[in-house]
Amino acid sequence: MIPRIALDAMSGDHGPAIVISAALDILSRQKDLHLILVGDTAVIKRILGSPSAKIMQRLSIQHATQCVEMDELPSRALRGKKDSSMRVAIDLVKQNKADACVSAGNTGALMAIARHVLKTLSGIDRPAIITALPNMQDTHTHVLDLGANIDVTAEHLLQFGIMGTVLTQAVHNISNPSIGLLNIGQEEIKGNERVKQAAKLLEASAVINYYGFVEGDDIFKGTVDVVVCDGFVGNVFIKTAEGVAQMISYSINKHFNQNLFTRLSALISLPVIKNLRQEIDPRQYNGASLLGLRGIVIKSHGAADVLSFICAIKEAIIEVQQNVPSQISQQLDTLLSQKRDVE
Amino acid sequence: MIPRIALDAMSGDHGPAIVISAALDILSRQKDLHLILVGDTAVIKRILGSPSAKIMQRLSIQHATQCVEMDELPSRALRGKKDSSMRVAIDLVKQNKADACVSAGNTGALMAIARHVLKTLSGIDRPAIITALPNMQDTHTHVLDLGANIDVTAEHLLQFGIMGTVLTQAVHNISNPSIGLLNIGQEEIKGNERVKQAAKLLEASAVINYYGFVEGDDIFKGTVDVVVCDGFVGNVFIKTAEGVAQMISYSINKHFNQNLFTRLSALISLPVIKNLRQEIDPRQYNGASLLGLRGIVIKSHGAADVLSFICAIKEAIIEVQQNVPSQISQQLDTLLSQKRDVE
Repeated sequence: MIPRIALDAMSGDHGPAIVISAALDILSRQKDLHLILVGDTAVIKRILGSPSAKIMQRLSIQHATQCVEMDELPSRALRGKKDSSMRVAIDLVKQNKADACVSAGNTGALMAIARHVLKTLSGIDRPAIITALPNMQDTHTHVLDLGANIDVTAEHLLQFGIMGTVLTQAVHNISNPSIGLLNIGQEEIKGNERVKQAAKLLEASAVINYYGFVEGDDIFKGTVDVVVCDGFVGNVFIKTAEGVAQMISYSINKHFNQNLFTRLSALISLPVIKNLRQEIDPRQYNGASLLGLRGIVIKSHGAADVLSFICAIKEAIIEVQQNVPSQISQQLDTLLSQKRDVE
Repeated sequence: MIPRIALDAMSGDHGPAIVISAALDILSRQKDLHLILVGDTAVIKRILGSPSAKIMQRLSIQHATQCVEMDELPSRALRGKKDSSMRVAIDLVKQNKADACVSAGNTGALMAIARHVLKTLSGIDRPAIITALPNMQDTHTHVLDLGANIDVTAEHLLQFGIMGTVLTQAVHNISNPSIGLLNIGQEEIKGNERVKQAAKLLEASAVINYYGFVEGDDIFKGTVDVVVCDGFVGNVFIKTAEGVAQMISYSINKHFNQNLFTRLSALISLPVIKNLRQEIDPRQYNGASLLGLRGIVIKSHGAADVLSFICAIKEAIIEVQQNVPSQISQQLDTLLSQKRDVE
């Protein structure tokens, strides 16, 4: 089966030019792939030009009249933009006309529409956003949930652990990924009731390689492969990370404008921090997955360049090949049958 | 009335030498001050040497046989070190033989012992740790709670708002400080029930200048004077901040070791980040206040130098002069009488 990926061609900071370039590039190098460009047909055709017949066999266009703005309220996008490129791309997944979709659009709107259209998997109450962050082991730490749900139970944290395990195994080739539960370190306070309860559930689960509690700085130390937390804490975490990086850029800038040598020095250090900030920036998740849905939805950078958008398409292809939603379902079933055995 | 400040002379990474130097320095420059050095009398006397009689009139020694280690479990320090310099310094505050105490020791132990010995103010269920973080306005953002309590109610968040208002007004001379409630930004999810409820309480309070919701990066942007959150989120926040700063140092180091020029460049940028890290490092709060107690307890850097320890003593003096615990009590009473009027 050739993966069919719907691309939201109209969203993102740079619009269709980036998406179409990425599509043509990957189609020319990867034969077993079908892409569907979703958006204004006239605009897409104009940018597309006249690719070879070989490529056009594996590329189709799905018309959509609207576009979700980057700063549009998710609830308004959900209610008011039923013919947006984002919505139509997700609809194609729902209708089984595409196996996955990729969008560089507004994250909140993407989550709201995906959840509404695709629904969650059986056994998953709420979807979660997972992304990979750089760490001092020169690998990545995968963190979820980054803001899709806030009032979670211990059971939800267990579900996040399962989803994180499946994704990092299937897509990132990490065998037996270690799962850490985000907590605070003081002995007096071993975490709230929910975290304590979640720790018991994670510990007892045969499908999870549970490491134990980790703290905020462990994410960047690379202590574990996957860190699980509720969406409130995850969102504060990711925004704090970006805030600190921004603050450090500010301080270095201020300090470095003192003389010629310090200015030259800034020329080197600021790009290093800028690169890191792009990896951390919550508005720019690249290849972040919306997990727990009955379908595959990948978020690309809003400001993605061609290469980044290609990465997001590749992430979608692997999730299709590995059938991530089905693997998550199976692991949940295993877990549920374990429970029944115990009872 | 001359402020009497008990100094835990034995704790901190550098032990009594720093504390005693700081004590002698501030006593020589500030006449209306009495200091009590708490710790091993023989050790203290040896380091003290023979200061002038004028200084010795305002300096006393209180013997204590034990010392809380920097990595000692708070519960063990509380149960097993009843004659530690930290415990005896706090006991002096309880016995009204000192007006405040300052320690560069183990934060967790300090909180546990202070809470056990001094108890919380009437109307305050739990104490909170507040500290000042640098921001891009070149001022400071005060954040509480940073880890003293995790399972908090909306009422507790309101109490934190009051304590933050009183401290920044009384000690940091910020008139009508603006208070932000830490939340997450997506429109779909306007925060959990507790945060929504706390927002209503803060909004309704006449003693608080409530700004509204803020996000993790607002702390470093300097959007408000005081940010209120529960201790779980606050602890994740502060540890994430340190983790990112550490990660950036790591990345710059890695990048900068490429050639002579990049190495020279690192010589400039790394100290800038190091300074910032020291301001952010949760183990090194300088002049952090333990608020909500029936007494004044100030935490100095574990790795504090003489100047930093003097800053912490000055913070203690101002809190004594402003009678911060009593001001917090009064504001709570005002609030309670407002409530009664409404009912």
